[in-house]
Amino acid sequence: MEGSTSMKVVDQASLSSMFNPQTVAVVGASENVGYGGYGGRVLRNLVRAGFTGNIVPVSPKYEEVQGLKAYRDIRDVPMPVDLAVLVVRAELIPGIMRACGEKGVPACSIVSAGFAERGDEGAALQREILAIAGEYGMRFSGPNCLGIANITEHVFASASSLAWNLSELRPGNVSIVSQSGAMAFNSVLARAHEHHVGIGKIATVGNQADLAIVDFLEYLIDHDEQTRVVSVLLEALLPGDGRRFLEAAGRAADAGKSVLALKVGRTSQGAAAAASHTGSLTGDDAIYDDCFEAAGVVRVNDLDELWQTGNLIASTSGMSGHGGIGVLSNSGGLNSLFADLCGVEELALASIDQTTVDVLREILQGFGSAANPADITGHIKRDTLRDMIVAYDRDENVNLTVIGITPSGSGPYAVGIARNIVAAQQTTKTPVVVLWASSRDLETAGKATTDDSGITILLDAGVPVFEEPRKCARALRHLYRRRRREAEPAAFPRMITGAPAQAEPATGASPLLRDNLLESIGAERIPVARSLVAEDWEATVAAAEQLGYPIVVKVHSPGVAHKTELGGVRVGIADRAELRQAYEDLTGILDRRGEPPRLLVQELVAGEVEVILGGVRDPIFGPVVMLGSGGILVELLRDRVFRPAPVDTATAHAMIRSLNGAPLLEGHRGRPRCDVDALADTIVRFSEIFAAAPELTELEINPLMVGKEGSGVRAVDALAVGGDEQVREPAEAGRR
Amino acid sequence: MEGSTSMKVVDQASLSSMFNPQTVAVVGASENVGYGGYGGRVLRNLVRAGFTGNIVPVSPKYEEVQGLKAYRDIRDVPMPVDLAVLVVRAELIPGIMRACGEKGVPACSIVSAGFAERGDEGAALQREILAIAGEYGMRFSGPNCLGIANITEHVFASASSLAWNLSELRPGNVSIVSQSGAMAFNSVLARAHEHHVGIGKIATVGNQADLAIVDFLEYLIDHDEQTRVVSVLLEALLPGDGRRFLEAAGRAADAGKSVLALKVGRTSQGAAAAASHTGSLTGDDAIYDDCFEAAGVVRVNDLDELWQTGNLIASTSGMSGHGGIGVLSNSGGLNSLFADLCGVEELALASIDQTTVDVLREILQGFGSAANPADITGHIKRDTLRDMIVAYDRDENVNLTVIGITPSGSGPYAVGIARNIVAAQQTTKTPVVVLWASSRDLETAGKATTDDSGITILLDAGVPVFEEPRKCARALRHLYRRRRREAEPAAFPRMITGAPAQAEPATGASPLLRDNLLESIGAERIPVARSLVAEDWEATVAAAEQLGYPIVVKVHSPGVAHKTELGGVRVGIADRAELRQAYEDLTGILDRRGEPPRLLVQELVAGEVEVILGGVRDPIFGPVVMLGSGGILVELLRDRVFRPAPVDTATAHAMIRSLNGAPLLEGHRGRPRCDVDALADTIVRFSEIFAAAPELTELEINPLMVGKEGSGVRAVDALAVGGDEQVREPAEAGRR
Repeated sequence: MEGSTSMKVVDQASLSSMFNPQTVAVVGASENVGYGGYGGRVLRNLVRAGFTGNIVPVSPKYEEVQGLKAYRDIRDVPMPVDLAVLVVRAELIPGIMRACGEKGVPACSIVSAGFAERGDEGAALQREILAIAGEYGMRFSGPNCLGIANITEHVFASASSLAWNLSELRPGNVSIVSQSGAMAFNSVLARAHEHHVGIGKIATVGNQADLAIVDFLEYLIDHDEQTRVVSVLLEALLPGDGRRFLEAAGRAADAGKSVLALKVGRTSQGAAAAASHTGSLTGDDAIYDDCFEAAGVVRVNDLDELWQTGNLIASTSGMSGHGGIGVLSNSGGLNSLFADLCGVEELALASIDQTTVDVLREILQGFGSAANPADITGHIKRDTLRDMIVAYDRDENVNLTVIGITPSGSGPYAVGIARNIVAAQQTTKTPVVVLWASSRDLETAGKATTDDSGITILLDAGVPVFEEPRKCARALRHLYRRRRREAEPAAFPRMITGAPAQAEPATGASPLLRDNLLESIGAERIPVARSLVAEDWEATVAAAEQLGYPIVVKVHSPGVAHKTELGGVRVGIADRAELRQAYEDLTGILDRRGEPPRLLVQELVAGEVEVILGGVRDPIFGPVVMLGSGGILVELLRDRVFRPAPVDTATAHAMIRSLNGAPLLEGHRGRPRCDVDALADTIVRFSEIFAAAPELTELEINPLMVGKEGSGVRAVDALAVGGDEQVREPAEAGRR
Repeated sequence: MEGSTSMKVVDQASLSSMFNPQTVAVVGASENVGYGGYGGRVLRNLVRAGFTGNIVPVSPKYEEVQGLKAYRDIRDVPMPVDLAVLVVRAELIPGIMRACGEKGVPACSIVSAGFAERGDEGAALQREILAIAGEYGMRFSGPNCLGIANITEHVFASASSLAWNLSELRPGNVSIVSQSGAMAFNSVLARAHEHHVGIGKIATVGNQADLAIVDFLEYLIDHDEQTRVVSVLLEALLPGDGRRFLEAAGRAADAGKSVLALKVGRTSQGAAAAASHTGSLTGDDAIYDDCFEAAGVVRVNDLDELWQTGNLIASTSGMSGHGGIGVLSNSGGLNSLFADLCGVEELALASIDQTTVDVLREILQGFGSAANPADITGHIKRDTLRDMIVAYDRDENVNLTVIGITPSGSGPYAVGIARNIVAAQQTTKTPVVVLWASSRDLETAGKATTDDSGITILLDAGVPVFEEPRKCARALRHLYRRRRREAEPAAFPRMITGAPAQAEPATGASPLLRDNLLESIGAERIPVARSLVAEDWEATVAAAEQLGYPIVVKVHSPGVAHKTELGGVRVGIADRAELRQAYEDLTGILDRRGEPPRLLVQELVAGEVEVILGGVRDPIFGPVVMLGSGGILVELLRDRVFRPAPVDTATAHAMIRSLNGAPLLEGHRGRPRCDVDALADTIVRFSEIFAAAPELTELEINPLMVGKEGSGVRAVDALAVGGDEQVREPAEAGRR
């Protein structure tokens, strides 16, 4: 997980060795390819995939395995071994690892289970093999994984149970990195192949004892020419790996590549124990979601999206960044449904030129509809389909054409439609996507026959085909967001790179952890409400008179974090009589909790809109800053956005714009526009302060009052949590 | 569209004749079954589907069509005709209709296009054929439809271009009613059939000149034994049909049936011109969404959901209403993903009994995970799978078992898995759903072979099979919501039936349209804020003193609907000096608009929470009541719920609970609980007032202040819109 340059060079060499080996040894190979026959299957799969290098079974028991000469020990293999796949009982792995080290094997993939996933003993064994690998400078994936594959080079070093002819797998530009082996091979690769979509490389990482998801991601982004899209299937990144992941995703954009992620674990994160509002809002994967968004990672929600959206993005790389979708379909109903789904997915349909309308009108002769979406009726089955595709291609408002089809996907009609689309595409530049919303194979009574399948003709010509309108619209949403980001990077959040990502928060003294948080924040150039602490009635009256009525009075004790919930805040006290009442009430509350009569007297800040500004130090992504609507109502509204800290001014403005409550700040229905610039500046400053204070786990200003344009912002309350101790809001600007 | 009892009897007979004919005549039959050969295709499809009644081509040109004896005129047919499918040029239809009438044909399906969808001339033709049908007491579907089908009886009276062997179609309990013909037959029926899911009846309605969606829905709910689920594909219901649709859906529940709807047109509804906040919030299909919810209609979002979710609901009718999902899968990764998606879809995983855990543990012998979801490793391929299914069946906490599978869907392993599942299901009652998240056919290198497909074995045994985790979870969400509604009807909104649905609002005088709206509302037993109108400075002062400071002052003019946006409201005026300032400001605003100095002086209502209560008279659903959060911020928060008016108390409480802002009303983070009972009573009363006032198109109380528990609610401002004139908020309780 080290990030130094020298380490990255080693990674590159090891991973290059893994994906492009001359010789692969299978330690634990056997004849058994059935139940439990993992070693046998790795060997069989390498052979079936048509690997042209050396395949060497290693087994102490056999002279020959599956017809190949076997060696008793890897050290006996008479040529250098580039990749060793280990498939023996867990307790044998340390010995085998030493043998591999002595043999000079640069990279292993450990399929065997029985390590950290099986308790303390297994975890100890896992630490042992990591130490052995370090000793010999080896890198390895796993343990508890299903191996790796490079389809282009026919390297299928995997224990997957897929039983078909692996040499038929087609290479593609989408690569897969996955924690789960079964889902990478059986759910993603197999379904992609069945839909004639090629895959490049596959890495399964299992327990991530050494090589982790982020290592493979970096390799595929920075060092692999063929890969255009990396589709990642993960449950969690390792602590501290978040920034590397985001930075690699950021570099992907520069290289014309994209990163897709299916992140499992949305609903399992527990954030109940957090002290701050900000902390309590980190559940439901909000930080992953928002950090991925910040780095341009496309977050998908199902397995098929990993290859289907990946393939769509990879195969439309020539697409213009400006324009909208043009739709041609034989069904008005399908047009309505698809236009609807485009609305749901925030996709724009192109406003087509009159010239295009005229071409359509000339062809349709009064039938159907010469508009976008166009209802082209039976012309879907005629050669005139080509002319309409060409017309959309020539229209600069259209940057992608969707062709919706309802006749069966098989049979002579289907073949004719497909051939016309392929022919048109060869003379045009605008990408074509087909939505074939009908049966795939029914023409021939339930049997798939490749020969008369229109869908197959399109897939083989590289035309992305969807069968369900919603999946199509959803994939296009991801595509358009990605392309918009490439075309207008300034409109999207940016990552400030190189910021340190502390997996473990530092402990110790911080100026922000002293008993004067608002004052400290004020000293850091964040505007705060004027406040005075009073410990008896006379001091309270004096403070109120110094600040001037109307004022705010709050209980003020390190033991009270959420004052409002306790009824410990009185707002808008107009005179001495009301102050007396408030004093009695609040000191009563403190008294019942065994606390001394300590109050905070504060000026009444007449902000227009309340927001919350928070920071948490995330174990995966390091310092993260949050902006939320509604101040103390933030948990109810759940209208908030996280970004890796620190952020720059453009990102701060993007955060503000992304809130549902943004219209309130920008002036809603006659309300005054707020000081959005001051808010953005404060977000930037806050994010810098928090990022530079590793001793803090949480820091929060709540509420931050945003005034009318020109009148700035004011922090009214604050909370800091650090290391072992928690210091809460003692906001002592001017103790009396 | 008439709703009288006698009419319904006629509908039933006509529709029964359509779906169960002895003799079908095809008027316009020809030899052409290719491009444009609609009449030829209807005839071919009837023959291919194996219809055993009489199929009679009618054509003036031929003696014989497709080998069948043809008649020149339908009146020449020598037996009674139960259904005539008309496929001739539009201008010939009136003559044919008269001939059908004279022949005594009870029902027609008019496939021909060229009617209302093609402008004024076509619309006149459509009115003409409707009149002819009325003259003879005939009913018809279309024009501009694709016909009808009854799969069970091999009636395939459709011009669909589907070219496969229609006699192989399997009958099922899911029926389809659709505006779009192509999507009903080519997208829904064909894909369902390809996935071995049976369909019952199909009705396409085209222009709905006579028989509309709601007529077929009523027939399938009230008179069709076989149908368990009606899947409706629609763009819009006809004006006034909404209540009938909802009431039929309500009766479905009583009959153990369900209604699913894919409603297109979510994003096209324009509501920009509405005068009230309520009106402006009816866009984005909110009224359809909420009225469907109120009647228990399952709203789906894609074509496959119509048959897939429909089949799931139809095939799990024996399911217990209480319990959660039990998951068995060979992949820990798939378990994580699926558990995650269950969280997203608000599905509960069962807390399984220790006995169940023990059974799993005994079988798994320390491998995998003996919990729910259970990681059953390679046991997916062994007979022990049966024992685990039985263990879940015996566990009362599990009311549905999902089996997740990642090995290929074809081949010997797949067949073995499928056979074990089918065998287990035969001895158990808990429904089993399979999530086969892998390739369907890859075992045999891309060719589907029914013989070795595990997926096919399951489908043929009636086990619902999903291939994508997300689609599975989404369908289960619909299923569980449906079952919960059946098990606990009291927890769901109810419809008060029999309320009149005015398609056209009545005009004329209403007590609510006079110049004293708040007073009128108050007289109807809705608590209102005390208010006085003042037209000069002296009257303003007197009013303020009568009400007592602090007070509220507002501009008060019929020309000003949205006072807040204009700066025309001053809240919390504490004394005469502040009142003078407010008077100058507000009369200045009025003066600049050429209005006299007319102000409303109102008591300051110290409500805890602001809500909006509104009514609109929807052209489809009639009177609808809305409750929303945030008062004047409602359009920003978009937190609102609509229900058909009037509502009862239970429904009013359900409306309150369904708001995101409900925790504010119920006491959030130390805030006091509000008077939720008073709010519910006011919602009921308001809904009754609005439902009984057909002359009003919109009525709105905004804000309605909800006080602390026991202190009631108070209407602070109101707006009514009726017929031609608009009267806005002159809330003159006690004019001075």
